[in-house]
Amino acid sequence: MKAIPLKIVLIGAGNVATHLGLALLAAKHNIVQVYSRQEASSKSLARLLKTKHTTAINELSTDADVYILAVKDDAIKTVVKQLHLKNKILVHTSGSVDMDVLKSSSSNYGVFYPLQTFSKSKKVNFENVPICLEANNIKTFKQLELLAKSISNNIQKVNSQQRTNIHIAAVFACNFSNHMFSIADELLKANKLSLDLIKPLIAETAEKIKNNPPAKMQTGPAIRGDKKTMAKHLKMLENKQYKELYKMLSRSIGGK
Amino acid sequence: MKAIPLKIVLIGAGNVATHLGLALLAAKHNIVQVYSRQEASSKSLARLLKTKHTTAINELSTDADVYILAVKDDAIKTVVKQLHLKNKILVHTSGSVDMDVLKSSSSNYGVFYPLQTFSKSKKVNFENVPICLEANNIKTFKQLELLAKSISNNIQKVNSQQRTNIHIAAVFACNFSNHMFSIADELLKANKLSLDLIKPLIAETAEKIKNNPPAKMQTGPAIRGDKKTMAKHLKMLENKQYKELYKMLSRSIGGK
Repeated sequence: MKAIPLKIVLIGAGNVATHLGLALLAAKHNIVQVYSRQEASSKSLARLLKTKHTTAINELSTDADVYILAVKDDAIKTVVKQLHLKNKILVHTSGSVDMDVLKSSSSNYGVFYPLQTFSKSKKVNFENVPICLEANNIKTFKQLELLAKSISNNIQKVNSQQRTNIHIAAVFACNFSNHMFSIADELLKANKLSLDLIKPLIAETAEKIKNNPPAKMQTGPAIRGDKKTMAKHLKMLENKQYKELYKMLSRSIGGK
Repeated sequence: MKAIPLKIVLIGAGNVATHLGLALLAAKHNIVQVYSRQEASSKSLARLLKTKHTTAINELSTDADVYILAVKDDAIKTVVKQLHLKNKILVHTSGSVDMDVLKSSSSNYGVFYPLQTFSKSKKVNFENVPICLEANNIKTFKQLELLAKSISNNIQKVNSQQRTNIHIAAVFACNFSNHMFSIADELLKANKLSLDLIKPLIAETAEKIKNNPPAKMQTGPAIRGDKKTMAKHLKMLENKQYKELYKMLSRSIGGK
């Protein structure tokens, strides 16, 4: 097993590659290269990580320890076909793609899935980000574990099926709840009100479930069965899609 | 205008009455009485607030400065009919009920709506809770403002229509997002996984929107248009209602 720091190639230059790259750099790893099909992206991430970049996959450095494939789920297969890494460790960072998609590219492969929401403009403290790990053999797993531990205190061993289940849960808890914040923002703006008004409420909603089961923390008209208030809200909601969402979510909360 | 501390009667003994009562007591107000139809509730809240209680509405103290009606929205009208407070200030604490429902009970009335989610087992720091105020005259408003400022730094003047719009936004941002956390919890448990896994993700999701518009913070398969991942998730989701919610919310995020 190679000791830390490791030599790392980043394949991809989106949000995951950026935030992961920054965390790995901060942990003193040697990011030897950034690859992205798009010149502007690979250049800009390479500059941020103070390393080299390429847009030609056949120019990938051959002497790194770990190759991190952080591209869109849909693109993983296409990129994998072009990679021939022999026994170098190859991981993808996806929540939903099976590990075995990588087996044609290397004899040592795995998954390095940081369970977090990454946006360009928001810095992420990796310390508490769960890193879900999977590997096709124990040696590779141990190496990935060493790498993960260098950036996070929260390492989880999960297989591909568990990871997809975690990802689905994450879509509900993160992507869909963010969409709820987004709808709230839109509704407030339409009435010349600011989201600032309900930011303490959003903070408390997230805070509550740290130590309490969310089902027990449910409040609002739907759980109270307050039909009058729900009818009033539905009458005031002009957007048809939001009206339907309101109905469906209220029914779901009410257990119907 | 009466100076702080004020003499206050709490009508209702649920979550709002409890948390508001505790905040008012901490701000040195004189809670002279708690009323609830249910003996156990009125007794237990009165004990918590170190005051008297009654279950008979005709035994309400007549010399308080402010009467706070914190009962279920559906029950407000029924209780109001039984109140004859002359010029004593009467407020309700509801997000969706018009202020004017109170006018038969007093000549000075208003709304004192704490914009927060209250659960029995979770303490609330009122300091940052927005208190939305409305009153039928300036004098009453000023008195309510004085009261609100004694427990919070965030006072908002909003009329009944604005308040309902805020409430609808709050239902999306708080009640519905909590339901998303709840579904995530259920899905994880069904696969013998713990919500703890995604708690850092939930915290970050709420954290992000403090300084960024939620629409710009949207991540996940739906906003990426990643149909393959969405199809995989839908195939794995067994609960029909959650399947429908997943589809509808993904469509809404995708702008369709």
